[in-house]
Amino acid sequence: MNIKNKKKLAKNWFSELQKIICKEIEKIEKVYGSNKKFKINKWKHGEFRTIKGGVIEKGGVAFSNVIGKFPQEFAKKIPGTKNNNKFWSSGVSVVLHPKNPKVPALHFNTRFICTKKAWFGGGIDVTPCIIDNIQKKYVHKELKKMCDLHNKKYYPKYKKWCDKYFYLPHRKETRGIGGIFFDYKMDNWEKDFLFVKDVGKKFVYLIDQIIKKKMYLKWKKKDKEIQLLKRGRYVEFNLLYDRGTIFGLNSGGNTKAILMSMPPNAKWK
Amino acid sequence: MNIKNKKKLAKNWFSELQKIICKEIEKIEKVYGSNKKFKINKWKHGEFRTIKGGVIEKGGVAFSNVIGKFPQEFAKKIPGTKNNNKFWSSGVSVVLHPKNPKVPALHFNTRFICTKKAWFGGGIDVTPCIIDNIQKKYVHKELKKMCDLHNKKYYPKYKKWCDKYFYLPHRKETRGIGGIFFDYKMDNWEKDFLFVKDVGKKFVYLIDQIIKKKMYLKWKKKDKEIQLLKRGRYVEFNLLYDRGTIFGLNSGGNTKAILMSMPPNAKWK
Repeated sequence: MNIKNKKKLAKNWFSELQKIICKEIEKIEKVYGSNKKFKINKWKHGEFRTIKGGVIEKGGVAFSNVIGKFPQEFAKKIPGTKNNNKFWSSGVSVVLHPKNPKVPALHFNTRFICTKKAWFGGGIDVTPCIIDNIQKKYVHKELKKMCDLHNKKYYPKYKKWCDKYFYLPHRKETRGIGGIFFDYKMDNWEKDFLFVKDVGKKFVYLIDQIIKKKMYLKWKKKDKEIQLLKRGRYVEFNLLYDRGTIFGLNSGGNTKAILMSMPPNAKWK
Repeated sequence: MNIKNKKKLAKNWFSELQKIICKEIEKIEKVYGSNKKFKINKWKHGEFRTIKGGVIEKGGVAFSNVIGKFPQEFAKKIPGTKNNNKFWSSGVSVVLHPKNPKVPALHFNTRFICTKKAWFGGGIDVTPCIIDNIQKKYVHKELKKMCDLHNKKYYPKYKKWCDKYFYLPHRKETRGIGGIFFDYKMDNWEKDFLFVKDVGKKFVYLIDQIIKKKMYLKWKKKDKEIQLLKRGRYVEFNLLYDRGTIFGLNSGGNTKAILMSMPPNAKWK
């Protein structure tokens, strides 16, 4: 398949997935009784949808398709930019901050990036503020099951990558309970694309399973305190270390779309 | 004077100033009726004092004296590190987040850094969440008055530097109403030190003048909302752009001392 068609297929999938994810969340809001809907914000390189719901206190689902140039310093670390800093990218990214401190925050992203080379990247990771080992096991079992359908090597590799990436060295803390994270995936386009689609579908499934299971649980003021401090760590990670955030803000990306990932509120001791 | 004595004098002043500032704040807390005191936290390279008061919701006053090595990449931008990345530094830094949204947040820092060269740096800046042009004029008039006693060129130069430094490009917003900011100050050690001491004394004076004037004012829920969103911007600035924060966290500094600057809480829309 030529690159033009690959771009088109990937982009169409990400755009479709954005709608599927928003529908899934609106369905949950409806079941819960809040009936809140996403607000659609369009800009020249995509659209980001945001919700302030009864279950999801603050959530964002962004689709983007950007043609641009990597800044010189940033390009050095990017494959296929030796003689040309231009890139094409498309992706979908999601951050969900639930109101209930017993429901973990969820993060998902998949993207297709083209320079002289072309690759997929993405991942799913889960950030609870109250430890639940049963849920942790469940999430990893589900992610492993999905990965294993494609390649037995994926899960261990991508789980490790995730743990390494979502780490706050200054706190000596992980951001959450991990998940999967992959980048520069360019083995076989058709197979990689099938995998990337499966990651997206698994995320839709996990939204439903993880959130519905806990959204009715009662919580105390003390749980909320823990959640607010954990959200402080989320802010620290995103602003200090997240490559997408830092790159986006430094390259004239859409600030509102990028900082859609910020929690509704946070605390520091 | 030899460098050893310069270091000693600077360090002793910063340490003394830390105590003066803490006393000043405790005096205000007493007048207000909260009577809260600073908690003293010692670590191997200094001590940071933190308060959770009735006037200052969250405040920190840190003294440090560090001997270390600049990381290679960072050193490139630092004077006097051509053949040797070692540095000696001492300084005092203050961040005050008042409870009352009508009282601005205050930030102050002065430092003496030695590589093969030796220089002072520092500044005072004010971050209100509710605009008050009279107070803005007052702050700048006071800073100008102090600067002018040393050199008529200081105020315009350092005011401009401050505006440039405390700017959030991704928001196209200034952090606050500015103040003064200076770095690499190595004209004449004795004169520079007198100036640095005056900056510190002026800050002590301004704490009293700015806070006492407004700490009794009534405020509405809407004012608090504005404050929490403004604190979100404060967090963004410190984690995305503040050189001291980023350098400190990347070079194994004391996380709690560095992130003492975080507000007690913040919001994002």
